[in-house]
Amino acid sequence: MKIICKKIDLSESINIVLKAVSSKSTMSILECIVINATDSITMTTNNMELGIQTKVVGNIVDQGAIALNAKIFSEIIRKLPDDIVTIETNESYATTITSGKAKFNISGQNIAEFPELPQVAKTKCVSISQHTLKEIIQQTVFSISQDENNKMMTGELFEIEKNILKVCTLDGHRISIRKVELSKEYDPVKVIVPGKTLNEFGRILSGDAEKMVSIYFTDKHILFEFDETMVVSRLIEGQYYKIDKMLSNDFETKLTVNKSELLECIERSTLIINENDKRPLILKITDNNMELNIVSSIGQMHEDILVNKDGADLTIGFNPKFLIDALKVIDDEQIVIYLFNSKGPCSIKDKDESYIYLILPVNIIV
Amino acid sequence: MKIICKKIDLSESINIVLKAVSSKSTMSILECIVINATDSITMTTNNMELGIQTKVVGNIVDQGAIALNAKIFSEIIRKLPDDIVTIETNESYATTITSGKAKFNISGQNIAEFPELPQVAKTKCVSISQHTLKEIIQQTVFSISQDENNKMMTGELFEIEKNILKVCTLDGHRISIRKVELSKEYDPVKVIVPGKTLNEFGRILSGDAEKMVSIYFTDKHILFEFDETMVVSRLIEGQYYKIDKMLSNDFETKLTVNKSELLECIERSTLIINENDKRPLILKITDNNMELNIVSSIGQMHEDILVNKDGADLTIGFNPKFLIDALKVIDDEQIVIYLFNSKGPCSIKDKDESYIYLILPVNIIV
Repeated sequence: MKIICKKIDLSESINIVLKAVSSKSTMSILECIVINATDSITMTTNNMELGIQTKVVGNIVDQGAIALNAKIFSEIIRKLPDDIVTIETNESYATTITSGKAKFNISGQNIAEFPELPQVAKTKCVSISQHTLKEIIQQTVFSISQDENNKMMTGELFEIEKNILKVCTLDGHRISIRKVELSKEYDPVKVIVPGKTLNEFGRILSGDAEKMVSIYFTDKHILFEFDETMVVSRLIEGQYYKIDKMLSNDFETKLTVNKSELLECIERSTLIINENDKRPLILKITDNNMELNIVSSIGQMHEDILVNKDGADLTIGFNPKFLIDALKVIDDEQIVIYLFNSKGPCSIKDKDESYIYLILPVNIIV
Repeated sequence: MKIICKKIDLSESINIVLKAVSSKSTMSILECIVINATDSITMTTNNMELGIQTKVVGNIVDQGAIALNAKIFSEIIRKLPDDIVTIETNESYATTITSGKAKFNISGQNIAEFPELPQVAKTKCVSISQHTLKEIIQQTVFSISQDENNKMMTGELFEIEKNILKVCTLDGHRISIRKVELSKEYDPVKVIVPGKTLNEFGRILSGDAEKMVSIYFTDKHILFEFDETMVVSRLIEGQYYKIDKMLSNDFETKLTVNKSELLECIERSTLIINENDKRPLILKITDNNMELNIVSSIGQMHEDILVNKDGADLTIGFNPKFLIDALKVIDDEQIVIYLFNSKGPCSIKDKDESYIYLILPVNIIV
């Protein structure tokens, strides 16, 4: 194989495919980027959960393919002195990377052992802007569970009904839901995508509202196609939790509050939290006032916030981190919080329920 | 004690004194910032090696003093909601920090146990700009030894003769020397300042060429005074190495080379270095060309650089890190490297010897 590319084109493609490189695999081939130069040049990575393939702009002098250690290859490309880069391999997979007066020799691997990306039949296709998809992932993926023993909770629900895409995560303490309208109606879809995968994938989406992503589904895989890139992820098998049964429209107390003010205040309260002695943030809600209190071995913090309250007074405790996570991804400046009693969950949601953040309280002695 | 200060003034002072807070001490008082409000407000820290005291702008309502855990105090101040901050303590050292509607209660400590900063008689005073002092520290301190068993090598020599200040560090593999002219002549001084101390101290200097630092010396301590801050450090006792005997003006090969080009090329070569298999960078110097080669288990790198050579051809090996460290702190674009033979040190220096970087080679089989 011999190809000639621009450094910047190589770097861009490397940054995309790096997201699916295995970091601690027993198979060294999974730590590689496969460069394939036949009709066009592509880079491919696959960590057996997530696979990414992207096109690289460049000239093919001799056709061929090689697998190169992703870490070494990406660092070499990043530090090359010149714009024009030549990558050349021989029959024993020795690879020479030349740029300006600099010449690197590294050993590559045969691509025969590299696991091919799963083939996904492009029948069911859904179209959504990169911007929207990137946003709804970031706005929900934080509340997946990290506990691999409960596989279902480590995933994110993608559910399409008519022209509505709903994404949802939950970890046993909270539920995060986002709904967006699609440009047309689709057949129903309900799949669970591994959350870690989505996290990595979200980072390579451009966030451009004009550029679209095509999503294809099969029973076992989800495929995202955008720009010159395709991303394939395994799905988590099984029935997802019945979310709708966990939600309720009842409330006893309804608060309207300035989001930034509340977020900053809760962030301050976490200064008092000791790693070894986690204490709840206690909210005491009375007419037009919310008192925030936290006490730990470090000390104590007290702050009042102006609120607009409908309904009963209430004292309730929360893990402040869960409130912070939700508030950080809400764009609205005025938010509405619905509360039931000191043992019931609180919901932060807008009128159309385009977002719902449900958080369970911590038991406190009132 | 009760004081009222602006958040920004508190933050600035905290950032200065934090540099002398002990991070892992068995004495919890050394992890504190002492706030003293008598005639003026000061903050003081002392890790027994380095001590810092700085003035804080603010109003004293009630005189007094308190020691507060530096980490907790600095984080609270950083996240306060309002510009105006009130700090109030009671007889049992309970401390209330109020700002806007936020109120923090933390426990402080009696300052009686806090070790006072050493008194340094202000007899021998040397004056130098903050900019110059900051620069010469940064340009030399990297080559102190980290090995605490060889105390002398962990220090930096400060030597004044007439109107010349010379600073020098060495670690057994290399020597770094900087000389600057002072505005007038002084009595001779020769002290060894702990390198770690200088590193921390260098970071709080403003780098402003118009602002001066006054330096005072005693047998045991060095005191730096600038702006509203004083920094006291212990000295390392003993006779420093006879540097002049290690330097020589002889050379067999003299190279003139573009510094940035050489630096970038050596940085590229380090990509091939394996943590567990350190190999030297080999320079092969012939007429007007320097060939750089490095070979490791990862692969091999080769690059040519244009040089201007006087004298004999030479092949010599170096630890590339040592070359990089020196090249990074040299401002000149064209540098001159003096070499003797493949076993002798190389010196990078300018005509006036305002800087000298001497580096020992690594043995290679030529």
